[in-house]
Amino acid sequence: MKVLVLGAGQLARMMSLAGAPLNISISAYDVNSDAIVHPLTQQQLGTGLTKAIADADVVTAEFEHIPLPVLALCQASGKFFPGETAIKAGGDRRLEKQLLDSAGVRSAAYHIVNNEADFKQAIQQLGLPLVFKSALAGYDGKGQWRLKQPEQAAALWQDIAAFLATDQQQAIVAEQFIPFQRELSLIGARNAKGQLQVYPVTENHHVNGVLSVSLAVAGNESLQQQAQQMFSAVANQLNYVGVLAIEFFEVDGQLLVNEIAPRVHNSGHWTQQGADVCQFEQHLRAVCGLPLGSTALVRPSLMVNILGEDTVPQPILALPGLHLHWYGKTKRAGRKMGHINVSAADTAQLKQRFLQLIALLPESAFPELTQMAQRLN
Amino acid sequence: MKVLVLGAGQLARMMSLAGAPLNISISAYDVNSDAIVHPLTQQQLGTGLTKAIADADVVTAEFEHIPLPVLALCQASGKFFPGETAIKAGGDRRLEKQLLDSAGVRSAAYHIVNNEADFKQAIQQLGLPLVFKSALAGYDGKGQWRLKQPEQAAALWQDIAAFLATDQQQAIVAEQFIPFQRELSLIGARNAKGQLQVYPVTENHHVNGVLSVSLAVAGNESLQQQAQQMFSAVANQLNYVGVLAIEFFEVDGQLLVNEIAPRVHNSGHWTQQGADVCQFEQHLRAVCGLPLGSTALVRPSLMVNILGEDTVPQPILALPGLHLHWYGKTKRAGRKMGHINVSAADTAQLKQRFLQLIALLPESAFPELTQMAQRLN
Repeated sequence: MKVLVLGAGQLARMMSLAGAPLNISISAYDVNSDAIVHPLTQQQLGTGLTKAIADADVVTAEFEHIPLPVLALCQASGKFFPGETAIKAGGDRRLEKQLLDSAGVRSAAYHIVNNEADFKQAIQQLGLPLVFKSALAGYDGKGQWRLKQPEQAAALWQDIAAFLATDQQQAIVAEQFIPFQRELSLIGARNAKGQLQVYPVTENHHVNGVLSVSLAVAGNESLQQQAQQMFSAVANQLNYVGVLAIEFFEVDGQLLVNEIAPRVHNSGHWTQQGADVCQFEQHLRAVCGLPLGSTALVRPSLMVNILGEDTVPQPILALPGLHLHWYGKTKRAGRKMGHINVSAADTAQLKQRFLQLIALLPESAFPELTQMAQRLN
Repeated sequence: MKVLVLGAGQLARMMSLAGAPLNISISAYDVNSDAIVHPLTQQQLGTGLTKAIADADVVTAEFEHIPLPVLALCQASGKFFPGETAIKAGGDRRLEKQLLDSAGVRSAAYHIVNNEADFKQAIQQLGLPLVFKSALAGYDGKGQWRLKQPEQAAALWQDIAAFLATDQQQAIVAEQFIPFQRELSLIGARNAKGQLQVYPVTENHHVNGVLSVSLAVAGNESLQQQAQQMFSAVANQLNYVGVLAIEFFEVDGQLLVNEIAPRVHNSGHWTQQGADVCQFEQHLRAVCGLPLGSTALVRPSLMVNILGEDTVPQPILALPGLHLHWYGKTKRAGRKMGHINVSAADTAQLKQRFLQLIALLPESAFPELTQMAQRLN
């Protein structure tokens, strides 16, 4: 089976590695170069997008910031999953908020801001503190502003107005600031028959707005149930096919949706070692019409992102339960270069192994890990 | 890091999949076409063997039946692991028997047969029944003859003489027939520092001389100890670097070596899901000078070979703990096309899952599985 992935980064690469054992071969559309490449070797395959779509049995995406004409072309092929509507909802916070509202799923109260009147109304209607997020192309904490004090509003509006002026399509979604205790995510899959399989809820830790660590341990049943219910509502609303990720804020035991990602997700990389079938294989199964696999937690696991580094100390490879995943990328400050998965028989052993790993990693490149290890109890 | 693998079959392919996350890129030398190919895509890479060796950081092999000039060329590069001597010992039963003798490791009593006088002496010296095995290029039960009754000797000699006449380099190793209860194997790795890591002993079931099922469950400590001791003796004798497989006969709780394979091995495919670090990654770690990984059994597991079939019933993918591994090959009768790994929390669950799988597989293509499932207790 042949699958074309929109996007040629690490997610397409890991789909390629997961697909090969199922005789699913992956080609990838590099949005920047407009070329079709092999996602593992990055070798150009010499076909244009139109031919690549025609040659593929299935088209899917590894990210949501895709030019609209490309989405339309894929949608017209009739073999694009999860499809244009889902990808757009993941790439535009206005559509995302509409989706969450129509699915009846809780998220932060919001107001769309296109001009100064909207900006003022957002403050009046929602109160402070507020978070202003760009509607398009915002990820990893980029394109976000916070407003805590009324006297900062005028200056902030100047910044936001300048930002809006750069792009006619752009808008801002103003959201009530949520004083959350934890950030969680749920990764799951839905197939064309409407069957659902979700992984255990993952606890995520960000540093400077970028995911640093995800923890998947024996779950809190109440949170798992809430997350699954919201996942089902969103996935069914979209008639979704493929792997979908939903990020949540936890506030006093209640979940609110932060955002959705209509694709495999960084906070699901632990499934490569910790779950029965990993998210990359599961996504391919869903979009290719194969039976969904078990999402059971095989071993408590965690993932540490490698950001901006192209080496790690070799001795970490000798640690039991450790797996290193490089993405074959050229080093650049802050870039997601790879990740480390750690698995263990139980939470106590996982904590012990995490502490062994932390002791070997340079703190400058891997900050705040010790605090995160203290969460494992 | 760049690794060149001699041989471009499924073992090189699975090394490629295991190496990518470590940023180890694999090219493969197809002995039949004399071409350098990508082991996953089989795309020709346009470099000759000499340049491919020069470009590689490390050279290794996925099989032992390699032309001697190729072995010599690789050996001269100084970066060939496990190296010429080990590969030759795996490809020539005469050298293999010498190796086992000098390592002080038990195997069936034998006699080398080059002519009729040797043939008669083998019968006289070893007694009947005997197994005659071709010294070169014999695998999966090919190039083997059995002699049970003295009156069959003359006719058998005619067959063997005709076989020997086809190849000047060929010889026969006559071995005492071993009335074994089980066939076992031990896969392990040795690095350049002499460190060893072995997996749990695997129980293997052959049908018509070809491996059908491997079982890796909680071990028999005495057999594990014997196997490890013999593994160490052979690996140290060869100053071995890489993954090495040793097949054993079990006779009344005692092990004798059947044969060695200086490479990753079909009976170790279960490690992809059942062990901490799989044999393919472990081999690459050893030959690339990276730390060896943990070989701990994560979950009791088994492997079923897919022989001569290019489809399996799709519903098997819904079984928990099941992983399907296709090799991307064109269908041919009896050909190793892929394998199925099954893992579970304990032996009882593994048996239950195996029986669920058996119920879904066509018995004609997967014979004798039910008998094998009965071994799981």
